[in-house]
Amino acid sequence: MFEARLTEVQGLVQSALDATLATRPDTPLTAAMRYACQGGKRLRAFLVLEGAALYGIPATAALPAAAAVEALHAYSLVHDDMPCMDNDDLRRGLPTVHVKWDEATAVLAGDALQTLAFELCCAPVLGAADRRINLVAALAKASGGEGMVHGQALDIAAETAGRPLTIDEITALQAGKTGALIGFAAEAGAILAGADRAPLRAYADALGLAFQIADDILDVTGNEAATGKRVGKDAEAGKATFVSLLGLDGACTRAAELVAEAEAALEPFGATADNLRAAARFVIARQT
Amino acid sequence: MFEARLTEVQGLVQSALDATLATRPDTPLTAAMRYACQGGKRLRAFLVLEGAALYGIPATAALPAAAAVEALHAYSLVHDDMPCMDNDDLRRGLPTVHVKWDEATAVLAGDALQTLAFELCCAPVLGAADRRINLVAALAKASGGEGMVHGQALDIAAETAGRPLTIDEITALQAGKTGALIGFAAEAGAILAGADRAPLRAYADALGLAFQIADDILDVTGNEAATGKRVGKDAEAGKATFVSLLGLDGACTRAAELVAEAEAALEPFGATADNLRAAARFVIARQT
Repeated sequence: MFEARLTEVQGLVQSALDATLATRPDTPLTAAMRYACQGGKRLRAFLVLEGAALYGIPATAALPAAAAVEALHAYSLVHDDMPCMDNDDLRRGLPTVHVKWDEATAVLAGDALQTLAFELCCAPVLGAADRRINLVAALAKASGGEGMVHGQALDIAAETAGRPLTIDEITALQAGKTGALIGFAAEAGAILAGADRAPLRAYADALGLAFQIADDILDVTGNEAATGKRVGKDAEAGKATFVSLLGLDGACTRAAELVAEAEAALEPFGATADNLRAAARFVIARQT
Repeated sequence: MFEARLTEVQGLVQSALDATLATRPDTPLTAAMRYACQGGKRLRAFLVLEGAALYGIPATAALPAAAAVEALHAYSLVHDDMPCMDNDDLRRGLPTVHVKWDEATAVLAGDALQTLAFELCCAPVLGAADRRINLVAALAKASGGEGMVHGQALDIAAETAGRPLTIDEITALQAGKTGALIGFAAEAGAILAGADRAPLRAYADALGLAFQIADDILDVTGNEAATGKRVGKDAEAGKATFVSLLGLDGACTRAAELVAEAEAALEPFGATADNLRAAARFVIARQT
């Protein structure tokens, strides 16, 4: 059920992004944007659509918000992969944008994908203007200098800090870098419905941290063919991770606890939230 | 009158940006964002506030939109100055962000300034939600892959095209690179007022092109101390500009014609638009 739904979401989101970009000028910039928007798990889009479904909002009416969070995520990956940042030449098994084109195109494609995310949040189908402006504000809060970009900057600063991070520091870093956008995705349905965001926020907080712990575990246990990116690079760089701080067993235990927390937060929604519960379990079981 | 008002706008916008950034985490990222938001002519902010004034909207109620367009402009400069783009080490007489910090900080500070621009457009003081969402949509349209970033990408492609651009190509390039955001700034008042955007759009189209022609003229006639940036670099790079295509006299004549067009477009507003008329004349008379 969960995996069938995730596959369905992947198709919906890809179509939405392709349709938007199909109207753009036929340039290398547009080609690079399209390339950066291919593939991926679409977990964030899934969270948007399933969160919206809890409030009776159909997928068609929430789809631009789901596409927005994936465009935003894609921009962050394009910039993160650049030589001055993580310097990755492989992403989802394919050359990264700055490798396939050049660094200038990577900067500009990332910039334009961020803009596209905000543009998508304006789509009238998402509902009344007050809901849409709340969505824009929440996306800005989650992704900007107090959210995701703040986390990325802390991550880069950590590499030159000359000492390993504490567990509190790495938790704060990841809350920004990964947690904030996951949190936005999970809450988007409540925003579009004009409902209380607290239950989905609690779910998202636990899920976001579990997601990052799972990423750290995968960096140790994963293989390059399955993940489509270089593995072992955190240890190589001497970076503190949840695995280096808690040990592999400790990290797995903590991730499992967080998944239980995430599932518990969905209690008010009963069985309608089963896909979101399955998503939480998927996050720590995934191989990519 | 015009210059006193421009100085006043500079103070208002700087305070608004400083106030927003004062609440941010005390990190190099925030410091770089603040640094990138210092100074500048604030012509775009002036256009927002004066455009709003035509419809009786006070500066306090339009200020976040003025700050937004300056944050957006600042982001574009930070990224544009990077080594993989224009590779400038001087901006407004000071070291550029990637020189003062590093390239990673420049990428992230630019990214976060773009986000900040959209966040500022959500400020409740700007008015009803439908006006604010229209503002967000217009800013996205003007600044993204069909507007400013599209123009920047065309500019970079032109450098490796192996032939000089035609006058039509360079006009299209500049309409995106400079014109789109100037156009947004000029129209913002009409958007906030829920009024017909056509008169300010006609003004903005002429003004934006005049602005870019003036920039090309300054690159030939300006001096580094006054402009605070390297001059002569277009000729050095063998780039086609309005001056290389029309000659210096021809470019000056075309700019003056466009200013007359811009002034004519303001006729419906009578004397209340005098500051905007003065702004159009300023654009081609400026030394920086």
